[in-house]
Amino acid sequence: MSVLIAGSVALDRVKTPKDEHGDLLGGSASYAAIAASFFSPAALVAVVGKDFPEEHVELFKDQNVDLTGLEYTDGETFRWSGEYHEDMNSRDTLDVALNVLEAWEPKIPAELVASTKIAVLANAHPENQHAVIDQLGDNTKLTIADTMDLWITIARDRLDDLLKRIDLLVLNDGEAKQMMETTNLITAGHKLLEMGPRYVIIKKGEHGAMLFGKEKGEFFSTGAFPLHEVFDPTGAGDSFIGGFAGYLASLDRPGDYEFSDLTAAVVRGSIVAGYTCESFSTHKLQALTQEEFDARLAEFRGMTTFS
Amino acid sequence: MSVLIAGSVALDRVKTPKDEHGDLLGGSASYAAIAASFFSPAALVAVVGKDFPEEHVELFKDQNVDLTGLEYTDGETFRWSGEYHEDMNSRDTLDVALNVLEAWEPKIPAELVASTKIAVLANAHPENQHAVIDQLGDNTKLTIADTMDLWITIARDRLDDLLKRIDLLVLNDGEAKQMMETTNLITAGHKLLEMGPRYVIIKKGEHGAMLFGKEKGEFFSTGAFPLHEVFDPTGAGDSFIGGFAGYLASLDRPGDYEFSDLTAAVVRGSIVAGYTCESFSTHKLQALTQEEFDARLAEFRGMTTFS
Repeated sequence: MSVLIAGSVALDRVKTPKDEHGDLLGGSASYAAIAASFFSPAALVAVVGKDFPEEHVELFKDQNVDLTGLEYTDGETFRWSGEYHEDMNSRDTLDVALNVLEAWEPKIPAELVASTKIAVLANAHPENQHAVIDQLGDNTKLTIADTMDLWITIARDRLDDLLKRIDLLVLNDGEAKQMMETTNLITAGHKLLEMGPRYVIIKKGEHGAMLFGKEKGEFFSTGAFPLHEVFDPTGAGDSFIGGFAGYLASLDRPGDYEFSDLTAAVVRGSIVAGYTCESFSTHKLQALTQEEFDARLAEFRGMTTFS
Repeated sequence: MSVLIAGSVALDRVKTPKDEHGDLLGGSASYAAIAASFFSPAALVAVVGKDFPEEHVELFKDQNVDLTGLEYTDGETFRWSGEYHEDMNSRDTLDVALNVLEAWEPKIPAELVASTKIAVLANAHPENQHAVIDQLGDNTKLTIADTMDLWITIARDRLDDLLKRIDLLVLNDGEAKQMMETTNLITAGHKLLEMGPRYVIIKKGEHGAMLFGKEKGEFFSTGAFPLHEVFDPTGAGDSFIGGFAGYLASLDRPGDYEFSDLTAAVVRGSIVAGYTCESFSTHKLQALTQEEFDARLAEFRGMTTFS
């Protein structure tokens, strides 16, 4: 079973209090695809410019990410640069150059349409996310969309429309409060469910994540794996949803997913996202081994189990 | 086995965006004692003025809180008033009148010294907390202290001294960061352990709590029970530590507590603290039944368990 990841591929420049790097592989779909591929076959639907470095292409290939949906167009690759401050929870976007992303219209190759069981609409303009849904086939069991404060502000109507077409919305705590105009996250989660999706995940960074479902009693809360040092949290949310989707896809479920499948996937996504925070770009994520992951999952289980 | 709770008893005035009440039973020791008494015999060591309302005395008695250590002195009871804002996570202290608390020197009756197995130094000036430890007997298995930003700022030396005399420090996330001058809570927890206590608990409000121990692998993290509406969070932290201590005291442990005892106690304390948030003062906490508590604990277990 395959996970389709549509979204942005970027070249990032990231500055933290301790270090600064440029020309890093970035973008919502890059992180999500590499995280998903840890668990399951994953395919990327995105656009880059002719300047996109071959080393990043090789990285995707090394991770067994299917690139038949990666489009090259004239112009430069989307670029983003940002700076993190002392507490690593707040960042400033220093520069954004949409470049080839501006005129992009996602196109999903027919073979990917046929093989996609889970579609991840990684963070992107809601218009692009709609365009992906328009092309999905009947085989798709679960459609997941991420979003961000920018789209809540400038494309709210199209985002609201999107909520009626997806199975699961994921967004962070500040965005959930902004979107539902409440200071209570539990209220925000339930109000978001009323907007359409069967499930909502609210990401809380260092405080973990919450999963809300429409059925009575469907609520799950988990912490984040404790990290002594956060090098660069860029892409942690994208890695979370990629890991979530990849783990789900790895399960052998002929029918719908059970709520317990989703809670297990939230924990796997959260663990994977922790690795993303421990290095710049996808460096730690791309090197993750099954042994390391299993050990951390077992450790996390021990840290959160009580009698 | 008995829990001794030393700290403040106050008359509070609390204003929230929705409501306002005065002459409420407040103070760190009031909340902690009522929460502890839910699980175990609890005794209060505190001071009030001659104006202290009889109805609050009756409330303590109804909860089986031992009042032999409650001192009446000339003057008025400690008063605090505060206002919560829309997000209920931030509050302003509007007025503080220490009154009888100013000249208070805690005195523990001999029979309480003999029966105390767990001592809770609820939030108070570190000088008062030292005075309680000075009087504790050899039967005391565990000494727990809470603190707050005010003491970190104005009485840091005496607080540092206190850390060498207690088994467990509890404080909230902002205070831990302030005290250890770091933005990483995991780092803060480990640095606090180095200051002396065998265990540290960092409270994170709506995000739950973390428990750190000195032995390798001693780390526990839990979320808070999700609340749709927070009426008044005053005393939630005090209720947490009271419930934590009361639950521990209810366990039949001839020797030292195991780490798993403490993790179980963190969850019980957290559940109890949730009830405190659901009403003004101790109204919801004091009415809590075993059936309600057991149901919520079971629900919480379901919300946090994953496969």
